Amino acid sequence: MNSMENDPGTPMAAAASTVQPARAHPVTLRQVAEAAGVSTATVSLIVNKKKGARIAADTRNRVRDAIRDLGYRPNAMAQTLVSGSSRFIGLVADAIATTPFAGQIIHGAQDEAWKHGYALLIANTEGNGELETDAIAMMLEYKVRGILYSTWFHRATAVPASLRESDFVLVNCFSTEPDARAVIPDEVQGGRSATDILLRNGHRRIAFINATTPAPAKDGRLQGYREALEAEGIPFDESLVLEAYPDQEGGYGATEELLKRGVTAVYCYNDRMAMGLYDGLRENGLSIPGDMAVVGFDNQEVIAAHLRPPLSTVSLPHYELGAAGVRMLLGLDESPADTAVKVHCPPVERSSV
Amino acid sequence: MNSMENDPGTPMAAAASTVQPARAHPVTLRQVAEAAGVSTATVSLIVNKKKGARIAADTRNRVRDAIRDLGYRPNAMAQTLVSGSSRFIGLVADAIATTPFAGQIIHGAQDEAWKHGYALLIANTEGNGELETDAIAMMLEYKVRGILYSTWFHRATAVPASLRESDFVLVNCFSTEPDARAVIPDEVQGGRSATDILLRNGHRRIAFINATTPAPAKDGRLQGYREALEAEGIPFDESLVLEAYPDQEGGYGATEELLKRGVTAVYCYNDRMAMGLYDGLRENGLSIPGDMAVVGFDNQEVIAAHLRPPLSTVSLPHYELGAAGVRMLLGLDESPADTAVKVHCPPVERSSV
Repeated sequence: MNSMENDPGTPMAAAASTVQPARAHPVTLRQVAEAAGVSTATVSLIVNKKKGARIAADTRNRVRDAIRDLGYRPNAMAQTLVSGSSRFIGLVADAIATTPFAGQIIHGAQDEAWKHGYALLIANTEGNGELETDAIAMMLEYKVRGILYSTWFHRATAVPASLRESDFVLVNCFSTEPDARAVIPDEVQGGRSATDILLRNGHRRIAFINATTPAPAKDGRLQGYREALEAEGIPFDESLVLEAYPDQEGGYGATEELLKRGVTAVYCYNDRMAMGLYDGLRENGLSIPGDMAVVGFDNQEVIAAHLRPPLSTVSLPHYELGAAGVRMLLGLDESPADTAVKVHCPPVERSSV
Repeated sequence: MNSMENDPGTPMAAAASTVQPARAHPVTLRQVAEAAGVSTATVSLIVNKKKGARIAADTRNRVRDAIRDLGYRPNAMAQTLVSGSSRFIGLVADAIATTPFAGQIIHGAQDEAWKHGYALLIANTEGNGELETDAIAMMLEYKVRGILYSTWFHRATAVPASLRESDFVLVNCFSTEPDARAVIPDEVQGGRSATDILLRNGHRRIAFINATTPAPAKDGRLQGYREALEAEGIPFDESLVLEAYPDQEGGYGATEELLKRGVTAVYCYNDRMAMGLYDGLRENGLSIPGDMAVVGFDNQEVIAAHLRPPLSTVSLPHYELGAAGVRMLLGLDESPADTAVKVHCPPVERSSV
């Protein structure tokens, strides 16, 4: 693919034959010591924040000034060894890249990790077991403070054995195995919120297009729909629950069945189905929300915010899942022993209802 | 947001009050030494691959067996100090999370880094200058092998001063400053490929809806359009180039102007515009591709593959940008001194032409 493609042979051989710009020469501990007029041992004690080291305030200040003036970079690897603990949190992700969502888990985890002085060491495994084993081994060798094990969609998971060699938290997944702390989206509450948007706008006969594929989201979002109807005294009508493959084509394909149900509103399992349904409704000459109110789930921004009309939906709280995972790992949030912590899925109202 | 939210006070205080599952006890160097019947110094020499250490093959084998049997994890931090070089490559990204694309840069960079024994240390800065400075400082302190500095859309950038303390490569961005190696998408070739799809299908009067916002993509994609027409002997007609904001609403809003041009085909600056234009064309009773052939750019999967009909487009090669950035950093790909390396944007044909 690369227009400069070549067969490099060994890295070293290739490095010798190609242009490598000069990098700025790093400042050494010795240079700091010379500038401050102290021994390298003294600088080392200060840089590594050695406890109990007795160093005069004046000396300390001279060293700090020299560090600042010369732009010296302490060696974090050495500090880690000296202090006995690493400042890394590992994040194992099965698919950062194949979903536009997973990135927000990274974002939330990173923001929260940084707040507490940790850097994130990320490995994307694409669900490949061998890569996963290697990734966890690498993190353990770097003596990470703990590992977040995350999946791109909410699901049950087995806990890889090596994960137990470190503190760990499951993010967007959960396990029935003992001592597996986990943080997941609250699908039931999300389903209630989605249905509530329609109920609040006066709809009584509301269809739900659920997914054909089994998942905690399938069960939870249906339960939320039932609970919301029940709270309004509307009896659950099984014939109003359809199923389709959870993408645009599935939503489009469900149009005909939906129109036989005589409903005024529909809640779709996800935004992608809603996008397909939009096309189906339009082909039938129906307007949204005039002829049919539509609500989605996920808040997949690039779709939901830009359909015509923009889609009311419920957010999957990926950013918050990442952040909450870090807080739980560091013991800042409570970790119930036998149940996953559920994160709220906030409704996002636009103009499809 | 978290249903278990609490105010933890200091991390330590909170840690004491919450449930922390026991982690497996890590195997020590001493345990390996005891199992193998050798000194810890000998194990250390083997684990840290100390050159010139004279150790009998039999001893070496016993230590290796003990390491395997006990499941000992070497300390990568210590190895890094001993070997004098780190096995990290840093990736500074302005927005991993706010675009569904940037993830593929991570994915490509990680795959390539792993291939050469490096782990990726990622920092997402969301374009915040202070965060960026901190992120680069952190990477320098971990003595990274080098830093990839990436942006979520192709643009010119300044080179942060601290970046020059390490080897670095700009990914999806470029600079006119000296010694700034860079890898970017080939927008001109991409524009040619997009236009070629339409030309190959017999279209002669082809409109281009360009972006209103200035960017290398705006200039490059237009130049590619001109070159493709020219190669077919079709004179460039400025009146066939429209401009709109590069999202769904922009594409939709351009419909009326487009229909005045009497064209049979249109190439849109990006897939989001094409998605909006689809709605506009349908509202005018026009079918795709029968009444109007449409081509996009970006191959934003969740949109392009699932429009009705699925959209022919050109891929932004984010995965390859990340991989090529790592190869360039490690000196495996050539790095021309004064120009960015351009990566091919492959056409993806579906059924909108």
